[in-house]
Amino acid sequence: MEIGFVGLGIMGRPMALNLLKQGHAVSVWARRPASMEPLVAAGATAAASAAELAQRCELVISMVGDAPDVEAVALGAQGVAEGAVAADRSDLVYADMSTIAPTAAREIAARLVERGVTMLDAPVSGGEVGAIAGSLTVMVGGPQNAFDLARPAFECMGKTVTRIGESGAGQVAKACNQILTGAGIAIVAEALLFARAAGVDPERVREALLGGFAYSRILENHGERMLARNFKPGFKTWMHQKDLRIVLEEANRMALALPASAATSQLLNAAVGSGMGEDDSISLLRLLEQMAGRT
Amino acid sequence: MEIGFVGLGIMGRPMALNLLKQGHAVSVWARRPASMEPLVAAGATAAASAAELAQRCELVISMVGDAPDVEAVALGAQGVAEGAVAADRSDLVYADMSTIAPTAAREIAARLVERGVTMLDAPVSGGEVGAIAGSLTVMVGGPQNAFDLARPAFECMGKTVTRIGESGAGQVAKACNQILTGAGIAIVAEALLFARAAGVDPERVREALLGGFAYSRILENHGERMLARNFKPGFKTWMHQKDLRIVLEEANRMALALPASAATSQLLNAAVGSGMGEDDSISLLRLLEQMAGRT
Repeated sequence: MEIGFVGLGIMGRPMALNLLKQGHAVSVWARRPASMEPLVAAGATAAASAAELAQRCELVISMVGDAPDVEAVALGAQGVAEGAVAADRSDLVYADMSTIAPTAAREIAARLVERGVTMLDAPVSGGEVGAIAGSLTVMVGGPQNAFDLARPAFECMGKTVTRIGESGAGQVAKACNQILTGAGIAIVAEALLFARAAGVDPERVREALLGGFAYSRILENHGERMLARNFKPGFKTWMHQKDLRIVLEEANRMALALPASAATSQLLNAAVGSGMGEDDSISLLRLLEQMAGRT
Repeated sequence: MEIGFVGLGIMGRPMALNLLKQGHAVSVWARRPASMEPLVAAGATAAASAAELAQRCELVISMVGDAPDVEAVALGAQGVAEGAVAADRSDLVYADMSTIAPTAAREIAARLVERGVTMLDAPVSGGEVGAIAGSLTVMVGGPQNAFDLARPAFECMGKTVTRIGESGAGQVAKACNQILTGAGIAIVAEALLFARAAGVDPERVREALLGGFAYSRILENHGERMLARNFKPGFKTWMHQKDLRIVLEEANRMALALPASAATSQLLNAAVGSGMGEDDSISLLRLLEQMAGRT
């Protein structure tokens, strides 16, 4: 399949490389031309714009930052819609794999449909490690036939590929994932700090609790890194802050009270404010320690 | 081993029965004589007081309510200390398996040492199902030699028996467990409600997320019961409310900020206030639904 790929950063680059490795013809475009070089070296074709990709590919994928970036790629000058309209196409599938608000994804999808482009929202979890290994979890919202077309591409990048529902449903699932991982980190950090402050070895507590209902992959994986005081990302605090902001904006819009998510969001704000934005979001442990004067 | 058992409620009764099944000689005492009947029918000896148990057993175990109940059993009239002093013993081990504040457990242990009784705090997790199956997690604080003596008894009741550290350490581990399970229920409830409010099938979201870092036993087990709307206990909301109160009282005493635990505690307060105290603590989902007018 001829696939266009926009956004070749920490996540996008290994994802596009995995498409090449599985034998797909990949054309790439990135705002910074230097980002395209490693892909071209691996066999990709450089394009001059997202519009060019939309003119000649069956599937265009983007992996960029936040909603305004997706909107620019999809609907902006020299963007996907412009290219599809110029080529008079009505069969193009555009899959955005960035993490943005479900509402924004639905709005962009609706505007693309008017221009003959079918959009999938297909955010991922699993981080840079999962992107390199091709073991991401891909959560997809959008029409079934577009999903069927894009699925082989998603399966080059992810181990678990699930169509959750209609447009926006992938972003909703990703938001739920970020609630569970972000708040999961907060509560593991609170428990480990509680143990240490009470004079008990947090490692012994963690080991005992891994065997029961307190078990989570966050306690196992992130808890171990907290105890090793390894705050290297992984997944950066400012990115988790962004994702919880999205959750709470949507909750505000829907008039939902999510108190534990809200507490987590405040902690992520404070962690970024305390200079931990570029560290892993397990930095919530250090933040809580600082708040209690127990560094 | 001759074991005394005090407190034969939902948890204590099956725990004492498991001691009998493994061939221990068990004597029992309970405030309500009727509670002793099923144990006597199974081969236990009824005693007239906790003091009587302390006079003739190697190990006395209690499974009662909160700190005042433990204090009454340990230090009150006709209690463990009184019996041990009357019999001029200095080798008695007393293991309290109730969930109480670590500070309270340490204070009671210190007062018992003055009377020649060595106390272990040995709270459990796993609920009534684990108590019946003998598959509880037992988290123990106290001296190593007392732990060595009591361990065979604990292993009749629990699958995972861990000495966490010195006096109070078992209760600290249990408090951490209750943070992770209580707040874990809150965040799973928030995520599932978020999905439903956003028009997405929460079951599809849960399935997709079980494969990644969002995995927790709470998402798997309690999440399934939330979706089935099965709010039967399990573990009652008022008991989880009590346990988070303990966490936050200790946090206050240690001057620790635990924002996600605090949010969870408030939700548990509201759930009990809304008449859900006798239901399972997964009732937090129903509470959040009510708060959002989405029942």
